[in-house]
Amino acid sequence: MQRIVVLAGGIGGARFLRGLKSAAPEADITVIGNTGDDIHLFGLKVCPDLDTVMYTLGGGIHEEQGWGRADETFAVKEELAAYGVGPEWFGLGDRDFATHIVRTQMTAAGYPLSAVTEALCRRWQPGVRLLPMSDDRVETHVLVDDPDGEGRKAVHFQEYWVRLRASVPAHAVVPVGAEEAKPAPGVLEAIAGADVVLFPPSNPVVSVGTILAVPGVREAVEAAAAPVVGLSPIVGDAPVRGMADKVLAAVGVEATAAAVAGHYGAGLLDGWLVDTVDAGCVDRVEAAGIRCRAVPLMMTDLPATARMAAEALRLAEEVRA
Amino acid sequence: MQRIVVLAGGIGGARFLRGLKSAAPEADITVIGNTGDDIHLFGLKVCPDLDTVMYTLGGGIHEEQGWGRADETFAVKEELAAYGVGPEWFGLGDRDFATHIVRTQMTAAGYPLSAVTEALCRRWQPGVRLLPMSDDRVETHVLVDDPDGEGRKAVHFQEYWVRLRASVPAHAVVPVGAEEAKPAPGVLEAIAGADVVLFPPSNPVVSVGTILAVPGVREAVEAAAAPVVGLSPIVGDAPVRGMADKVLAAVGVEATAAAVAGHYGAGLLDGWLVDTVDAGCVDRVEAAGIRCRAVPLMMTDLPATARMAAEALRLAEEVRA
Repeated sequence: MQRIVVLAGGIGGARFLRGLKSAAPEADITVIGNTGDDIHLFGLKVCPDLDTVMYTLGGGIHEEQGWGRADETFAVKEELAAYGVGPEWFGLGDRDFATHIVRTQMTAAGYPLSAVTEALCRRWQPGVRLLPMSDDRVETHVLVDDPDGEGRKAVHFQEYWVRLRASVPAHAVVPVGAEEAKPAPGVLEAIAGADVVLFPPSNPVVSVGTILAVPGVREAVEAAAAPVVGLSPIVGDAPVRGMADKVLAAVGVEATAAAVAGHYGAGLLDGWLVDTVDAGCVDRVEAAGIRCRAVPLMMTDLPATARMAAEALRLAEEVRA
Repeated sequence: MQRIVVLAGGIGGARFLRGLKSAAPEADITVIGNTGDDIHLFGLKVCPDLDTVMYTLGGGIHEEQGWGRADETFAVKEELAAYGVGPEWFGLGDRDFATHIVRTQMTAAGYPLSAVTEALCRRWQPGVRLLPMSDDRVETHVLVDDPDGEGRKAVHFQEYWVRLRASVPAHAVVPVGAEEAKPAPGVLEAIAGADVVLFPPSNPVVSVGTILAVPGVREAVEAAAAPVVGLSPIVGDAPVRGMADKVLAAVGVEATAAAVAGHYGAGLLDGWLVDTVDAGCVDRVEAAGIRCRAVPLMMTDLPATARMAAEALRLAEEVRA
């Protein structure tokens, strides 16, 4: 059985995983999920990326939106607002609240996030092994021009992303706590034992980049015997979704498929898929020592996404051979 | 301005207070609320009696039910059940959850329950000053025949009341933690400064009794210059609502209007209202040193309840004169 390890962010990662499961139904898939965008809201621990993966693969996701629960209601949030308790800009629905209540209760009882995630997945049966990158608290902060005044200030990634819609200039992205974090149990073992390691078209800075910032993870990926293949989240010089270009700019990387490959680097990546519209950069990426192919990279539906995953696995085989 | 202090439980206390506000619209009313039925559920601090008073006087109560919120939905509870997280027997609705989330968040931030209650009341504007009996944790437990096996066991009052519907024999009622509890800020001062102290037709054991079990409260009521007048929760040898007879039996008190008066005692009570159907016991209660009148005591609607409150205030004046 093929052992596949995927370093995943939220929406893009989750949708890619659905394609991967379809392309490799027999594979043993371990997902290392980003927890840098976790946030404490209303005293509850919220893990947006882990939940997006769990809900998407478990059949509970709001399909059009890509995050949150299907058939969601917002009574709790309305009531919290009536108490004057915010933030109002973060859209927690009633069904979603239950997940955070269970997680917070288990965390308060002493369970590490990895054990909590496993417990939540017992309900959702995502068909993959979902591991948080770390059981330690890591919070991505973004240094921005202060939207309410002069100068710069650091804001939580969610505030930058959801409240400010990445509309203010960002100057740095800092995964606070990452330096002291340890990989969650099973993370390094999964990478070391993998047949293939994939980077889905997730945000290279605040999703995959944050996972790689946990000491030991980047090293494990670099040292892995398995081919490491990524898929570009940038198509035709723009992010397929989200605002990856904004955070790429913050770390001084151009928003192009080739530049993202260079940002990961040949030390990390063995293969890189770019969209057919970016076929012109294939030679440049290969010249940097990364095997590169141009294939359609729009996750328009499940079959298209499954073909992308199959191309990634094919490129991994090519690298291996 | 007349200063009235009311020692209140949940539904009965809250409904009586609505009548009292109608009967004495100019009065300065302080409610000392029972917190012995507080319970931690799903990691959240739930204060059923305080909330029932707050929702009832603030216009948010589910009128027919007498507890919980109007127009309530149950998405969070359904989801928690889907995670296998219970108890399922306690009916927390989505709107209600928001109250517990705010309370828990403020408590975790270090605010005492009295400050939290004040903050919640800023939204609800109940028109009374609502004080928890104590900022310290007190939990009423009931010693019952083990419903699931042999022997006896202590269960949380809510488990006895809500899950078991008081259907198993109860042998003792213990307000765990009461001995070490201190009255909340303002409680003793309110009693000492009152013009009238009222015991609504709340449960004399697990509502009013628990408040009186906080060291200093009973002494303050006994020492109060103000007349202390109670209304019988027992009409015609049966509780008007709830299952007060069951917990009265547990503490060895007969379920009659006269026996409850005797349970409080002449040291505490100056006046006692019984229902007209119990007029036969008036002389017996008076012989025990408690001024007693028989008036209609069914809180069928607001006018009827307001008349009860007016009778209680009239009896207090009579005692004073």
